[in-house]
Amino acid sequence: MADNIHPFQHRVARSLKEQRNSHKSKVLWFTGLSGSGKSTIANATESILHERGMQTYILDGDNVRMGLNKDLGFTAEDRTENIRRISEVAKLFVDSGSVVLTAFISPYILDRADAKKTIGGGDFIEIFVSADLSVCEERDPKGLYKKARLGEIKNFTGIDAPYEEPVNPDLIIRTDKHTIEECATQVVEYMLEKKIIKV
Amino acid sequence: MADNIHPFQHRVARSLKEQRNSHKSKVLWFTGLSGSGKSTIANATESILHERGMQTYILDGDNVRMGLNKDLGFTAEDRTENIRRISEVAKLFVDSGSVVLTAFISPYILDRADAKKTIGGGDFIEIFVSADLSVCEERDPKGLYKKARLGEIKNFTGIDAPYEEPVNPDLIIRTDKHTIEECATQVVEYMLEKKIIKV
Repeated sequence: MADNIHPFQHRVARSLKEQRNSHKSKVLWFTGLSGSGKSTIANATESILHERGMQTYILDGDNVRMGLNKDLGFTAEDRTENIRRISEVAKLFVDSGSVVLTAFISPYILDRADAKKTIGGGDFIEIFVSADLSVCEERDPKGLYKKARLGEIKNFTGIDAPYEEPVNPDLIIRTDKHTIEECATQVVEYMLEKKIIKV
Repeated sequence: MADNIHPFQHRVARSLKEQRNSHKSKVLWFTGLSGSGKSTIANATESILHERGMQTYILDGDNVRMGLNKDLGFTAEDRTENIRRISEVAKLFVDSGSVVLTAFISPYILDRADAKKTIGGGDFIEIFVSADLSVCEERDPKGLYKKARLGEIKNFTGIDAPYEEPVNPDLIIRTDKHTIEECATQVVEYMLEKKIIKV
């Protein structure tokens, strides 16, 4: 009989997982307008990190908005809860030893500050994916700006809902000035510089 | 300029992550009464898997109830939402290439069926951690049964809230008959047998 239930839990600690993975676990928090290139840059960055043998995962609209947060809409309140849950999930992935790349508009400074607080300042890297609204609207990869301009989508960031730019992000990526590969390389170089990964 | 925003996303697929990790990703869903030994067995199992070089993570009350689900209580409705969110998070971890071990009472058959549906039948391994209520109440590792008997805690599974035993679980672990080490070994042997991990 197991007579030692709920003793000190021998959970495999994050530090042991990081050690085994040979890299630190962090959250790369990509924020920016729709169409700025968050998902694209996150994907390109993940490819490079995976090639380097790292444990990585992307959280974005495709896998979060359709699953965990499918009960949430786009009001200010729901956006806050959306970011709260994403922060908590990102924190779990960090605890599991992974580098998590989150790609959400996350338009409010306060919500991102809360995310940083939840995840822990030392594990949260804010990456501002910057491109002028006009450029994003021109790209309009999902045709959402068009719908927002026609009033078919309400509370659309940049049109009838605000985007609050990061005041002091860890990194600014200008997708209106550099190619996807250059942008992803900038992220990886930042990680090398900060010794999150080794040369 | 990045003129190729939101093209086909080159997400690093689960299959590539599983291949690199040299094991399949799955959810080991431990269900059972409070004090049955879910967390203890999950922790002991994780230690063995980690030693084998596997990517693993435990989701349990300690890291989920205090974070992602801190807005939820213990009514039937909140328990259902609790399990829904856990299922969605477990699914993300599976997608990231990990073996996830979940340790929650998860008392309702319907909620576990929904979890299986969300995660995908082939990735969901239901492990019934079985011990008689009297044994669990005797152990009472957190002093919760005592409080429930005194009416200080309401909706406590086994006392004034139901526990619906799995009808056809993938594995039954009897913590009232075997030691923790024996129980964890049974889980690992099951994984070997099902070729989730290699000898």
